[in-house]
Amino acid sequence: MKKQLTLCISLVMSLVLLAACSNSSTTGTRGNTAKTTDTTSKTGYQTTGKTTDTDYQGVIRDGKYQTSKARGVGITQEADKIMNLQSFESGLTTLSKKQFSPKKYVFQEGQLLGRDTVENWLDRVSKDNPTGLNPADNGKKEADERNPMYVQQIEEQDYMNDHNGKLSLGGLTIGIGMNRKDYYQKEQYGATYISDISKEEMVKQGRITAAKILSRLRKEKGVSNDTPILIAMFEQAPNDSLVGGSFYATAVSKSGNEISNWTDTNLASYTFPATATKSVPNDNDETSFEGFQNKIKNFFPNLAGVTAQGQYKNKTLQGMKVNITTQFYSQTEIMSFTQYVAQAARTYLPTGIPIDVTIKSADGTVQSFLSREDGKGDFYSHVFNSY
Amino acid sequence: MKKQLTLCISLVMSLVLLAACSNSSTTGTRGNTAKTTDTTSKTGYQTTGKTTDTDYQGVIRDGKYQTSKARGVGITQEADKIMNLQSFESGLTTLSKKQFSPKKYVFQEGQLLGRDTVENWLDRVSKDNPTGLNPADNGKKEADERNPMYVQQIEEQDYMNDHNGKLSLGGLTIGIGMNRKDYYQKEQYGATYISDISKEEMVKQGRITAAKILSRLRKEKGVSNDTPILIAMFEQAPNDSLVGGSFYATAVSKSGNEISNWTDTNLASYTFPATATKSVPNDNDETSFEGFQNKIKNFFPNLAGVTAQGQYKNKTLQGMKVNITTQFYSQTEIMSFTQYVAQAARTYLPTGIPIDVTIKSADGTVQSFLSREDGKGDFYSHVFNSY
Repeated sequence: MKKQLTLCISLVMSLVLLAACSNSSTTGTRGNTAKTTDTTSKTGYQTTGKTTDTDYQGVIRDGKYQTSKARGVGITQEADKIMNLQSFESGLTTLSKKQFSPKKYVFQEGQLLGRDTVENWLDRVSKDNPTGLNPADNGKKEADERNPMYVQQIEEQDYMNDHNGKLSLGGLTIGIGMNRKDYYQKEQYGATYISDISKEEMVKQGRITAAKILSRLRKEKGVSNDTPILIAMFEQAPNDSLVGGSFYATAVSKSGNEISNWTDTNLASYTFPATATKSVPNDNDETSFEGFQNKIKNFFPNLAGVTAQGQYKNKTLQGMKVNITTQFYSQTEIMSFTQYVAQAARTYLPTGIPIDVTIKSADGTVQSFLSREDGKGDFYSHVFNSY
Repeated sequence: MKKQLTLCISLVMSLVLLAACSNSSTTGTRGNTAKTTDTTSKTGYQTTGKTTDTDYQGVIRDGKYQTSKARGVGITQEADKIMNLQSFESGLTTLSKKQFSPKKYVFQEGQLLGRDTVENWLDRVSKDNPTGLNPADNGKKEADERNPMYVQQIEEQDYMNDHNGKLSLGGLTIGIGMNRKDYYQKEQYGATYISDISKEEMVKQGRITAAKILSRLRKEKGVSNDTPILIAMFEQAPNDSLVGGSFYATAVSKSGNEISNWTDTNLASYTFPATATKSVPNDNDETSFEGFQNKIKNFFPNLAGVTAQGQYKNKTLQGMKVNITTQFYSQTEIMSFTQYVAQAARTYLPTGIPIDVTIKSADGTVQSFLSREDGKGDFYSHVFNSY
């Protein structure tokens, strides 16, 4: 079975920076040139700029974005995997913000781990692939007898310090995606079977994997013994899930191969409305959502479909992504509907948390959307249009 | 040839309002109940609420949106026609705001003209169809010999007054879409031929059509002799155009069949970058756009496609809709690119006008967007995501 991989590790571009260094010393400028308005440094890099204080600026070199060394690993168009990928990547950035403040650090796509490295790591260990992080093939084909693939994806993010216009690696984040279900075929193009992995086994294998990756990262050029490394463990959602997976634990290594205590994130994603087999942790949220759903779905003579994803920390809802699909017959219907949904969202949906509402027509085209950021009272709304 | 039609005319729902009337008098409330926060009136209607002061509230009756009586006429999924439809419908709302202020009037989808009425009007006049607004079939098949179809679409919008929680028709807008090119087949499923219509002929036929529609509207139940009627004339864009058509003239009828002076809107839509055959009215805007385009297109190792639509009034740009398409390899690339585009838009694109920027991945999915409203300095940005 081909493994989904995502991995990008970033490295202090030592040579580039050395070259940039002399340039910098001649200009003699101090201060954070990368963060000024035009975000142009004379030392070979620029940043993307940022739209809010809670976003990272990204690194641009010679007018081009510094893409990941492992760019394209794990890219998928398969709908059942794309949500895991989105949850994984944006969750990793969110967790990193707590460790590496966007006010201090500049974000760089992973530059340490290259594409081949990551692909080898995600494969099974074997004579030909000694760096494989997944267990050796034991020759068994049955779901409960074979060695499952535990590690599904790996992604590196680099957090850079800016000293006088020169970037240096300030910290690393490494995300590790672990399977609870390993999908495999007994023969090529054959039926798909599933090896189940218990929560306990996943956590245990995750820690073993994290320790191995940490010691490998410490040996990478540009990573010092005391570069802080945030390790974030992600539980992949099953392929038939309507939400992506969640990060279940994090740990920080401040130096060497030492890993601080693992901290449970207690994060989990759920779908609304609740189903017979899976309810959300807090009944009040379900009631709120159903009130909203009822208010919306009969707006037009034709029904509107209303679903949502919610992220919980323990029993507390952290945010919602609402999706509404209906058939529109004119641009004015879209405008009126969007306003109506804004009103219903204000009235029914939980307050004090970030909420996005995306409104699509029956053919899947995004027609409008609403968004309330963390701590804001009102929804921003936008109707897509053309001249 | 089947005609594209769009037409919705709205009528004072006399019976509903009469019924609502007695209800209203018992509550004895005065004031603008429809515009309070919960936007619930005790007289049988609610409104959608509105997200900004410059938007209309729409009418809801018995919990359902009051859809157009001609709902579904002219609906198309054909890409080459959808832009004309969007330009027509949203342009009609924009023009109406000058005549019928959103602070005073509530928007209602057209309730006067029903689906059959509109379809008959848009067809050729004949013994079977005496109300047809297009000329009789003269039996000729050649492009320059046949009578072309001048009138392409019609849409009614109703602007309602709220008196003590009761709605009454305060004004009407009627949009009339006129062809410069009439596409037709000589035989079913045959090749498409085009009859060209000169600008002068279109304007002349448009005025004749407007006068006929006006006198018919005055006879509709609920329209009084002095109901103000805004007539807006739209020139359809050719099917191969990358922008929709534009409204070229408006007139107001304050009473009876009188039409005030026709006013040229001097509006026209253009695409950026300019092409060999069609440049924009102001070279500076093209230079600005090209600066923006150059800044963006090389951001990733793979190219980004950057195009835009601009609306002009004479030689002055009124607003832009920018579309950017590129291939993304991760969520972090989308985040960084969005910030970079925001910075480039601030730097390069014309200031002081509303600008939307939509960023799509190669498969056409909207990944993020930026929007600066009229008079605002900064771009709002949003990256679409899921849990």
